Amino acid sequence: MDPFSSAVAVDLVVLTIRERALHVLLVERGIQPDVGAWALHGGFVLPEEDLEAAAHRELAEETGVSAGIHLEQVRTYGMPGRDPRGRVVTVAWLALAPDLAEPAAGSDARAARWWPVSSVEHGALPLAFDHGVIFADALERARAKLEYSALASAFCPPEFTVAQLRAVYEAVWGERLDPRNFHRKITGATGFVEPTGATVRDGGRPAQVFRRGPVGQLHPPFLRPGT
Amino acid sequence: MDPFSSAVAVDLVVLTIRERALHVLLVERGIQPDVGAWALHGGFVLPEEDLEAAAHRELAEETGVSAGIHLEQVRTYGMPGRDPRGRVVTVAWLALAPDLAEPAAGSDARAARWWPVSSVEHGALPLAFDHGVIFADALERARAKLEYSALASAFCPPEFTVAQLRAVYEAVWGERLDPRNFHRKITGATGFVEPTGATVRDGGRPAQVFRRGPVGQLHPPFLRPGT
Repeated sequence: MDPFSSAVAVDLVVLTIRERALHVLLVERGIQPDVGAWALHGGFVLPEEDLEAAAHRELAEETGVSAGIHLEQVRTYGMPGRDPRGRVVTVAWLALAPDLAEPAAGSDARAARWWPVSSVEHGALPLAFDHGVIFADALERARAKLEYSALASAFCPPEFTVAQLRAVYEAVWGERLDPRNFHRKITGATGFVEPTGATVRDGGRPAQVFRRGPVGQLHPPFLRPGT
Repeated sequence: MDPFSSAVAVDLVVLTIRERALHVLLVERGIQPDVGAWALHGGFVLPEEDLEAAAHRELAEETGVSAGIHLEQVRTYGMPGRDPRGRVVTVAWLALAPDLAEPAAGSDARAARWWPVSSVEHGALPLAFDHGVIFADALERARAKLEYSALASAFCPPEFTVAQLRAVYEAVWGERLDPRNFHRKITGATGFVEPTGATVRDGGRPAQVFRRGPVGQLHPPFLRPGT
């Protein structure tokens, strides 16, 4: 058997927050297989391309954005039969970004758009291939990382208020959080955020402006309600 | 360009504790490329095989053990040129096990043995291909997960004392820990371990026997000294 008979792809779970709700980028497939189905955005890795470079290329093709986006490898999927064209192993990536513009459909797609995560979760919108599993794994990664890491600030502009940060947690977790309790935990976590010294008006009251602090891990962590 | 021209492999970073020190399983390559060099144990994924099944198969071939071992995907590596035979994308796995027997060399290996991690770290024993990077990434994954998860018990027998658990932390982190402080943190972490009610003699004093508790995450976490 010739081991050099597989294809390697990257698939991206791109999450952003629009109108206070978490959204995922999906494309409507314009070619076989699964033409007409909604899918994660991705494609084959080029012969002389590293896996991470392929993920960045696909991200830029669809969103026009290549820098300032958090991109991390989640997991690789290679179940035989997952793609009818042959053995395709796909490396899944999670990308998190502040509010992005409408995406542009690539060459193999009829359309590209942001879908509310709540419309896709639990199989409400079935995805092509095994993309439903990949989406669920990446979403859980993002939700879990907000508990232990400073990742939430990847969804924020460089300077933000505690209320803006709380809106990120609420959007990603899909739950309302108590503002006073959240404020206490945020400012109590060592090095997560630091005040810029400036204030902005937030619904009449002046609110402190923060930037991301030097610490990547949250001590103590913020746990999701009910965990 | 034909996208179906890559090979997919799995490589395993198998860690165990022998004589109170963390060890990694390495094989001495018996075939080209890099014949004679030490490498991670692994091989090509078979045509009708899932990635995780391939990792379990390779693990069983080398150690004779297929069950009761913690196995998790770490990351996938696909830099062009990482293997002179062609485009090989490898899915790296971390395996953690209680004290294992001497390994058996597979068909492509001259020898297989446990190396102390301290002999391999920081490039002391150069590994074939990019296996030095893969080894370092997997080792850091294991060390970091001991801070936030109940993973340390994967190195323990089903029933253990706090001193045995501390020996795991000390071996993986490569640092001595204060026994009294460790005991306080272990028994203070919600649901990490639970007493069986039995005691054993441990250096003259009776020591409580524990089993793994129901909680996979450590609240509060144990952080490595100096972090």
